Amino acid sequence: MRRITFLTDFGTKDGYVAQMKGVASSISDARLLDITHEVSPHNIREGAFILWATAPFFPLGTIHVAVVDPGVGTERKGLIVTTKKQILVGPDNGILLPTARLLGDFVVYEITNPKYMIHPLSRTFHGRDIFAPVAAYIARGVPFGEIGTPTKHFVDLQFDLGEHHGDRVVGEVIYVDRFGNLITNIPCDILPGEVEQKKITVVAGDRRWEQIPFVSSYGYAKPGDLLFTIGSNRFLELSVNQGNAQQILGINVDAELQLFFS
Amino acid sequence: MRRITFLTDFGTKDGYVAQMKGVASSISDARLLDITHEVSPHNIREGAFILWATAPFFPLGTIHVAVVDPGVGTERKGLIVTTKKQILVGPDNGILLPTARLLGDFVVYEITNPKYMIHPLSRTFHGRDIFAPVAAYIARGVPFGEIGTPTKHFVDLQFDLGEHHGDRVVGEVIYVDRFGNLITNIPCDILPGEVEQKKITVVAGDRRWEQIPFVSSYGYAKPGDLLFTIGSNRFLELSVNQGNAQQILGINVDAELQLFFS
Amino acid sequence: MRRITFLTDFGTKDGYVAQMKGVASSISDARLLDITHEVSPHNIREGAFILWATAPFFPLGTIHVAVVDPGVGTERKGLIVTTKKQILVGPDNGILLPTARLLGDFVVYEITNPKYMIHPLSRTFHGRDIFAPVAAYIARGVPFGEIGTPTKHFVDLQFDLGEHHGDRVVGEVIYVDRFGNLITNIPCDILPGEVEQKKITVVAGDRRWEQIPFVSSYGYAKPGDLLFTIGSNRFLELSVNQGNAQQILGINVDAELQLFFS
Repeated sequence: MRRITFLTDFGTKDGYVAQMKGVASSISDARLLDITHEVSPHNIREGAFILWATAPFFPLGTIHVAVVDPGVGTERKGLIVTTKKQILVGPDNGILLPTARLLGDFVVYEITNPKYMIHPLSRTFHGRDIFAPVAAYIARGVPFGEIGTPTKHFVDLQFDLGEHHGDRVVGEVIYVDRFGNLITNIPCDILPGEVEQKKITVVAGDRRWEQIPFVSSYGYAKPGDLLFTIGSNRFLELSVNQGNAQQILGINVDAELQLFFS
Repeated sequence: MRRITFLTDFGTKDGYVAQMKGVASSISDARLLDITHEVSPHNIREGAFILWATAPFFPLGTIHVAVVDPGVGTERKGLIVTTKKQILVGPDNGILLPTARLLGDFVVYEITNPKYMIHPLSRTFHGRDIFAPVAAYIARGVPFGEIGTPTKHFVDLQFDLGEHHGDRVVGEVIYVDRFGNLITNIPCDILPGEVEQKKITVVAGDRRWEQIPFVSSYGYAKPGDLLFTIGSNRFLELSVNQGNAQQILGINVDAELQLFFS
Repeated sequence: MRRITFLTDFGTKDGYVAQMKGVASSISDARLLDITHEVSPHNIREGAFILWATAPFFPLGTIHVAVVDPGVGTERKGLIVTTKKQILVGPDNGILLPTARLLGDFVVYEITNPKYMIHPLSRTFHGRDIFAPVAAYIARGVPFGEIGTPTKHFVDLQFDLGEHHGDRVVGEVIYVDRFGNLITNIPCDILPGEVEQKKITVVAGDRRWEQIPFVSSYGYAKPGDLLFTIGSNRFLELSVNQGNAQQILGINVDAELQLFFS
């Protein structure tokens, strides 16, 4: 069984997502699944992060359609990216690239064959008219080279990782989830040894919080207390047990964090 | 494979949509898909618009269940509407009619046979107790005439279209999407020739915006600039590139617009 | 065909739900359906209510995964609960118990076998790493006793029901839905005879509303008027026709209500 997932900034009210699924259903019996449709409007980087965090959990051969597309209808290209494990489809604005690199051995195709698009082709909704049908034709077994042309020219996007600067670890907040957990770009494998014995001081701009414990999960801090933990993406997260760290600390995506361990 | 879609104003929090899907799943193995559950509460016209814009993209034979139903449990009837291509199921309040007319050759049945309803039949949730099971029995091949009775009496609903008044085109905003795009009821085929060479002045009440360009897609205006474009429904839309036209202009659904082309 | 449903407080933005579905899809071809992901963060009782109201509508053999899990990563156990009709999977915090009791003949297993978990096992996301894969292995036919161990020790949770106190019926609001309907814990079968002929006075704290009609559905009250009706869960509900009773009355979940019938 083939599976197609959808990730967009379309929301779920307007019927746009359902139009994409209707088109895909008209071409293929692949199982259709949602990753999210709540990406902040036009936020390519946020969409790229959620795709990167989620795609690896899907089976071999899954086709992911990711459409955050402020450049729709201009000269920006549409892409198929094949990888060792899964296939990515979406606009050429970088949204697919962190996932492509993570999944490995990727090859980029520019979508060129109008035969696999919906006509009349709208200028404002390529998610429905190009990316959904292309994904569905791939699910039916149409070869990549029949739909597009290999290309070395595409918009790239990378996530920087936090790193050591002398006695500090410096990183940034790359995502804030529904619970207000501040997900940093600091991979768990660069933390100092015996981190679970240490307290952490965090500095963000001219603000500073001291003696934050590192715990293995939320429930090991008191309700309402700050804590650091390793999140489900294997990155360091700053959280409040049964509370919302974003609201309590007033910290947001892109905030730079400096961490001192003692 | 048969497909059933669901369109409601139930939201996705309360479990009501899942109850409908549970009932349908107990009767049929049809694939279940969402159109939207975020129709503004009790807004039949909005639900009718989203169904009308979305249903045509689904495959032949799809069954659409649309439930925006402030009259539930009163004497209002329940309907099956067959068309040339797809089948519609829902309350008799007009929500199905614009789509029925668009899909063509429609016949209306009143749902009458209690054998295809859930018992005890609630008075407040016919989506679960009548419309979902009726759709699932249709998916299983039960004939329409076994479930209901053909009728000529039903509540109608039509979308007016914008039109020429002398030198102006007059229309209204029929829908505002997540991005704040103002979708008008002005079909692209009544726009003046060479519209892409013209600037448009728009008057709404006592307010007026001049020299708005007509572009083929958002990205051809500067970020933050007003623009007109042909939306994915083939209607004229008033938008802001990477911004929210609804918020910036303070215009909402039902606002009358007068357009002057120069 | 096997079906797995998902109920969480994760929201639909962050990709967490999709990660659970990706994991389940990698193990089993069961059909995946959503109950809700909008449970108020950490609100076990609310999740338990929605599961209890919804699960019975699903087919025999459905597997429900319910994850509202503030204790994730601590010593709290993970459970499989088998019942006469369906199977429940989730954390040991009571969320599964009202539904287990409703479905009947339930047996509780503690999930113990790491072979059916995802590794490396995160400490903060057992929905993805334990409950989703366990549900998928159950769908594939792995015996309960192979995944876990029967136990008599688990956290219980019950919903109290409203009851008669002399001339009054006393109950509380157990849920408020999207429409602002106040769902009480007063079962319809304890209401006085000929309730549809009576007017109801309701007292909440030091506030009082008199002469509220009991009607069979919303449409039998005037738009904007208060009404009592039997909701789709067979409980008494306090509503406003085409309005929001929660906002108009300022009453919320857990409010105690005293009802006088005249």
